[in-house]
Formats: sequence, structure tokens, C-alpha cells
Amino acid sequence: MAVYTEIPDAELIEYLKQYDIGELHSLKGIAEGVENSNYLLATDAGMHILTLYEKRVNVDDLPFFLGLMEHLAKNGLECPQPILLKTGEQLSKLAGRPSAIISYLDGNSVRRPSNSHCRQLGEALAQMHLAGEGFEIERPNALTVENWRPLYEMSGKGTNTVAEGLSKLIEDELTHLEENWPQDLKTGIIHADLFPDNVFFLKDKLSGIIDFYFACNDVLAYDIAICINAWCFEADHSFNVTKAQAMLKGYNSMREMSDDEVAALPVLCRGSALRFLLTRLYDWLNVPEGAMVTPKNPAEYIAKLKFHQSVNKASEYGASV
Amino acid sequence: MAVYTEIPDAELIEYLKQYDIGELHSLKGIAEGVENSNYLLATDAGMHILTLYEKRVNVDDLPFFLGLMEHLAKNGLECPQPILLKTGEQLSKLAGRPSAIISYLDGNSVRRPSNSHCRQLGEALAQMHLAGEGFEIERPNALTVENWRPLYEMSGKGTNTVAEGLSKLIEDELTHLEENWPQDLKTGIIHADLFPDNVFFLKDKLSGIIDFYFACNDVLAYDIAICINAWCFEADHSFNVTKAQAMLKGYNSMREMSDDEVAALPVLCRGSALRFLLTRLYDWLNVPEGAMVTPKNPAEYIAKLKFHQSVNKASEYGASV
Repeated sequence: MAVYTEIPDAELIEYLKQYDIGELHSLKGIAEGVENSNYLLATDAGMHILTLYEKRVNVDDLPFFLGLMEHLAKNGLECPQPILLKTGEQLSKLAGRPSAIISYLDGNSVRRPSNSHCRQLGEALAQMHLAGEGFEIERPNALTVENWRPLYEMSGKGTNTVAEGLSKLIEDELTHLEENWPQDLKTGIIHADLFPDNVFFLKDKLSGIIDFYFACNDVLAYDIAICINAWCFEADHSFNVTKAQAMLKGYNSMREMSDDEVAALPVLCRGSALRFLLTRLYDWLNVPEGAMVTPKNPAEYIAKLKFHQSVNKASEYGASV
Repeated sequence: MAVYTEIPDAELIEYLKQYDIGELHSLKGIAEGVENSNYLLATDAGMHILTLYEKRVNVDDLPFFLGLMEHLAKNGLECPQPILLKTGEQLSKLAGRPSAIISYLDGNSVRRPSNSHCRQLGEALAQMHLAGEGFEIERPNALTVENWRPLYEMSGKGTNTVAEGLSKLIEDELTHLEENWPQDLKTGIIHADLFPDNVFFLKDKLSGIIDFYFACNDVLAYDIAICINAWCFEADHSFNVTKAQAMLKGYNSMREMSDDEVAALPVLCRGSALRFLLTRLYDWLNVPEGAMVTPKNPAEYIAKLKFHQSVNKASEYGASV
């Protein structure tokens, strides 16, 4: 759950004068986003999201994130975009923090995606990959294969307290992935965190994608693997191939996957499962005192990783090659 | 800060079918209200507040709170009111909790009220006292003079760790108030928690009053005393008589205070300062583990109580008698 920085009303009223969105109607802190403080901001011009970037976000990355949202929206993707200041800038400062006003996206996330949700998600992911072309700022993925071993080492000795044999599982997997990670797949802008909470639907029709704060340049098909992990397993961690099939079909209808991308799916799914396993493991072992969130149990991603280890070829994900 | 119960989307979609407000657009947990989970709920019919009543609220009180909002709104007060189910009921159940959908009130609270805000607050408070007439359910004030001594005893020995001599200050004050509490003032529905966070302004015009979850039957002028404490002191705890004057003038323009009510203001202000001192003292000494809020420092109300002890007559508050 997010931090809520208190914004003095007099400061907010002055702040809004930098924009062309009229006067303040209301401001409500919302429980969305973990790294930032987010507020629903109503003005004469309607509803917006006001974001204060708290210390966990690197300020140098903000031009990438905000510029990307603008670029994607201009290229037809349904996603929030920064409202520009009268000066044309995207970024301002409020309550001592870097801040931006972002357009409001109607819709709500789904907790248990249906096949139709998965198909639409696939379409939107491909659209995002296409819309990202030509974006000029680059941001390397800080959570890809070469970062996983140092990340694992930060959890270190605590690992086996979470599950018996977990250290060995992870170490073997790291070795496997370091040796087999695909090198020549098409790269581009990936979302890198496209979980169901970050996709909105309005009356069962996908209305947009939010939260680009993990976006970066990496292998496009890795983003598909993240979505397979995030969307195509049931609550009991069983794999739902029908959902994966729907997702891949949706994706291919907008951007056809190459044979190499399809063939790499098993290793990319293993890598993506390990990536979320490692961050959840670290968070699980390092709950800050007085934390406002219960960390997510890493067990879910242990199960998913083991599933992918059992997969021999991409057709088992429903990919039609 | 509020608890956030997770509401499964499928359950929410079913839940909304009980109402005549169309289909779900979006639901966002908001950082408002301490006792309940509150969400901004957008549907085809626009914006609403969805409230889940968490365990700190007594379910038996809900017909009072919800019925009161409906009664006040019918009598012309600007305040949220429950959206009725198709069955005509106010209360339903969601995510295992009692729940209600309340109309959305536009506007924002002010942090540093101006004289004009104070005048408008006085008018709205009087309007509320008048609008409350004829409401048939009764709810005694659980935080009035006879409850303060037992409440103080719950803090007990920790008291002097907060400020030197605080026990003696409180004990002497309890004795004074128990002997001098006014008995024959006009009673009615009071808000009992009308702090600046619970009053919305839209472009500097008061747009409504929210949060009736402390409302009860008690001496009307006690509500005025609560507002003097909550609205008419500066951040350094100095008393701003111009604000109090504006507030009382606003109040009298809608409902004229009797001579007895005016004369009782000093003792009512002392009582109200002690009431907030005692709850803050208790919360300060009993921070639950993993609490999501920093409790409010009781020092503010020690200063306010001492100020009121120095007041000899109501004219020092700007009352014109």
C-alpha cells in the first residue's frame, strides 16, 4: 500500500495554476501503486491522477516513464498520459517531491481473468510493443538475467527457511538460465509488470494499461512470458492452457511472434518465474518494521517455476507452431 | 488511515445489481475515514462512496448513522446520503461486512481555515442542528462528561510520561467539569467530530459536511465548543478570536444561541478540549503494533484546555452578549 504524503490545500491550489485544468474540486489519496503516493484529483476539467514520486523511485527515470506514457498514448495505446504544464513540461514539484498529473483511465482491474480477458490482454500487450517503437529514451532492465544472482545473494541464508531445498532450486535454475538465456530475440519497450492489477476493463472490454514504472528495454517475448505467469495460472497454481492459448492468439493477431520467440517461451517463462520468485523472496525475508503491506508469499512462484521446468516445448503453452 | 478490505470484482458486480446505479466503471480504495474502508465507486450513474463497516463500528449504530444522513439531506443539509437498494433498504453486505453506498460530495477539506471558512462552518453547523430536528432514532453520546473519568483511568499511570503534571491537570479538570457541567441546555443531534477534515469547500464555498460516525444526541452548544477547538486555534495553539467571532456569527445567523448557551461556552470548551485530550492521550499510549497511523500528539489539547481554563466569560470567544 502506498505512502500518503499530506498535501496542504493552499499549496495544491497554487500548484494547479501551472496547468490548464481549472480549479480544484477534490483530492483523495488512493490505495494504488506501491512506490508512489497517488491521488484522485478532480478539477473543472474532470478527473485526473496526481502522483507524488516518493524516494523509492529514481528521479532520473521519470523522463523515461512520463515520456513513454505520452509516446504510447500518441501511438494509439489506451493508457494514462501526463497532463502538460503550461510550460509544456511533464514534471513539477509538490509537497517537496517530484510530481506529475496524469490523465484518468476509466475501468477496473479483474481479479480472476476469464479467457476473454486473457485474449484482450494479449492484444493490448502486442499493441504496446508496437506503440513503443520509435521511443527515444532507453532504460535497461534492472531485473533481468544478469541481475538475478546478486539479487538472490541478498536473500542468502534465509532462503531455505522459506521452503526446504529452495536454495538448490534457485542456484540450479540460475545456472540453467545464465547458460540458456536467449540472445538474439527482438527487443523493444516492455511493460515488465503487466499483472492483472495493471490492466483495466470497462464492462468486460479492456479499457487500458497502467503503471509503467517497471517499463524498460528488453526482449519483447519476455513480456509475454511475464503475462503467462501473471494471467494464466489458477489460484491453486495450476496452469490454464486455454487462457494461455487465448492470450497468445490475441497477441499474434496484433503482432505475429517469430518462430524464435515462440521457441524461447519455456526458458523465458522460467526466467520470469524466477525473477518474481527472487523479489518476493527478498521482500518476504525483509519486511520493514511497521510495514503497511503483507509481502506476497514466494510459494506461488516456486510452484510456477517448477511447472515451467517440466515444460518441453512452447506448444505446451498453447502456442501454435 | 483506513483498512482496505479487498473486494473481489465478481462479487462487486453482483452486489451492484441490488442498486439502480448501473454497471461498474471503477473502484478505488481511498485514504479517508479511520474506522471504515472507503472506496470511490464510479458507475454508469456517476461517482459514489462505497463504505465497508469494519469491526470498530458497532453494527447496531448503523441505522442511526445512515438514517441520520438521509434525514439531514431531506431537510436541506448538504451532506452525503445513502443510496437505497432496490428493496428500499440502506444497508447491505459485501466482502463479509456490512456495507452501504453513499452519494458523492464534491469539494475538498481545508487545512488552514480562513475567517470566511469559519463563518460558513458556523452557518452549516447551525443548519445541521436545525435539520436534525424530528429525527426519531436516538444515540447517546458515549464520550461526554460521565465517560471521561473512566476513559482517563484507562490511560492511568502512563499519563505523566506524556507531560509533567498531566495527571493532576486532568484530575482537577474532571472534578471541575463534573461539578459544573450544564444540565438544562437544549439538546438535539450533534455531529461531535466536526473537524476541518469533515467539511468540504468547493472554490471557497462550503459544499457539505461528511462523516457522521460520531453523531449522537447531546447539548447542541457542545458541538459549537468542539468547533471552537477544532477551527479557531492557530498551528502554534494560539487562539484566534476573529475566527471564533466569525464562526459564532455564522451560527447565530441560522440559529440564534440562547443566553444560557452563550454563558456555558467556557465550560463547554473546557469539556470538549478534555474529551479530545483524553482520547488522544489513550491512543498515544496505546499504539497498536504495526499501526498504519501516527497517533496525534495530545499536547495540542493540553494547550487548548489551559487556554480555556484562563477564560472568564463567553465574550472572550467573541460571543456578542
